Amino acid sequence: MFIIKLGGSVITDKTKECTFRQNIMDNLSDQIKKSNQDTIIVHGAGSFGHILAKKYDLNQGYKRLDQLKGFSVTHEKVQTLNSLVLKSLQTKGIPAVSISPHSTIKLNNHKLEKMNYEIFEEYLKQKFTPVTFGDAVLDKALGFSICSGDMLVQALARHFKPEKVIFVVDEDGLYTSNPKIDKKAKLIEKTTIKDLEKLTTSLDSHADVTGGMKGKIENIKKITEQGINAILLNGNKADRLYQTLIGEETKSTTVIGEKRK
Amino acid sequence: MFIIKLGGSVITDKTKECTFRQNIMDNLSDQIKKSNQDTIIVHGAGSFGHILAKKYDLNQGYKRLDQLKGFSVTHEKVQTLNSLVLKSLQTKGIPAVSISPHSTIKLNNHKLEKMNYEIFEEYLKQKFTPVTFGDAVLDKALGFSICSGDMLVQALARHFKPEKVIFVVDEDGLYTSNPKIDKKAKLIEKTTIKDLEKLTTSLDSHADVTGGMKGKIENIKKITEQGINAILLNGNKADRLYQTLIGEETKSTTVIGEKRK
Repeated sequence: MFIIKLGGSVITDKTKECTFRQNIMDNLSDQIKKSNQDTIIVHGAGSFGHILAKKYDLNQGYKRLDQLKGFSVTHEKVQTLNSLVLKSLQTKGIPAVSISPHSTIKLNNHKLEKMNYEIFEEYLKQKFTPVTFGDAVLDKALGFSICSGDMLVQALARHFKPEKVIFVVDEDGLYTSNPKIDKKAKLIEKTTIKDLEKLTTSLDSHADVTGGMKGKIENIKKITEQGINAILLNGNKADRLYQTLIGEETKSTTVIGEKRK
Repeated sequence: MFIIKLGGSVITDKTKECTFRQNIMDNLSDQIKKSNQDTIIVHGAGSFGHILAKKYDLNQGYKRLDQLKGFSVTHEKVQTLNSLVLKSLQTKGIPAVSISPHSTIKLNNHKLEKMNYEIFEEYLKQKFTPVTFGDAVLDKALGFSICSGDMLVQALARHFKPEKVIFVVDEDGLYTSNPKIDKKAKLIEKTTIKDLEKLTTSLDSHADVTGGMKGKIENIKKITEQGINAILLNGNKADRLYQTLIGEETKSTTVIGEKRK
């Protein structure tokens, strides 16, 4: 079984509020269907969630009354995105069922306090494809906060021990430096936790431009530490997800899983 | 606190697949907001759910492979309706949060086996308005089946003991006979469980035309038996929901709650 994280920057246009990239999503749905693998799909909120969540400071927890509206609207927009994802998957023949974090998850000061794994198991047993997503959720200490898609991937990976966790991103994988500003940046095809840690340290010195990738590396470390391989690949390219799902070589970054002693 | 059931035949056009009655819903949202009462809102699936659920025999449980698609599509359509309801409530200033049955509820041979009341309590405590809806859900004995809005209302009424349960329907209330075919039909303004039982018996003889209302009466009985008043009122009329919520008299049917000894 595979856990696939569809990045918010792949399935939405992150620069324009609530813009779904239908063609990209349909292509990804196609690749998943064609591979005929059991999967759990997690998607980011992209421009359906981040802009509003930031506007209303939802990740700071409850501070002021208008955040109630912010929480409500953010959750509705993200649910609307989720319906678009479901529809695309269904159109390609995948019996997708959504598990909505705002109804099932509780955090405690940004950490996972309660998660209903059973509902994922039951849908999987019946041959459905569970789909979950970054969402605004209840938080024991803060009232509410944000449960990111990456947090969900970590928790699901720990519980379900998938063959691989695949991060579908908007770049070819991880680079030695930021490819958007450094022409000498090289794609890392295979790496280990230890090498990643060195990389994180060297990226730290220019964290202003690589903050996003640094967070991603932290997340990947937590997955590979459980002995699970993590792959990062470009969701904008036609067949890379499919090739990875059926075990073929493709342009991507593999971070080799290695259990921490 | 009030539990409000928005009938599928009020908020959707039941004769046309996936047709939302935006104006009616916006008017209902307005009335709920204006009343300034704490509420839990339950909505039916109407033409977003019933047509597909019937086509794929979802309420019969798992029998054949194409039902997986049917379940998935039905759930996506109903979630799309739910997003429209949420959006309407939010536009009028109600911080609505959806609790999706397919992620939280389990039935066992059409009976409620597991329901997460805690999540409703937590959203209520934080001054959100929980919204739930008739949906396709997991069923322990059958694989899956349908959890109706009325089943949710019953369970929530038993747990939360609301002041009143209000059924927003597409008629003025309960009639002595079917008003659509019998010109002598009279609106029942106040009634009791006992009188309802007599009425059900008399309606039984022409169950072909009153099946819908008979089911509704069975449901209302289970609520009023807990000592809770149930009101039926017309959602197509401008102010009736508002008047009922603020305790004013209006055209409607009240079924007086009376605890069974």
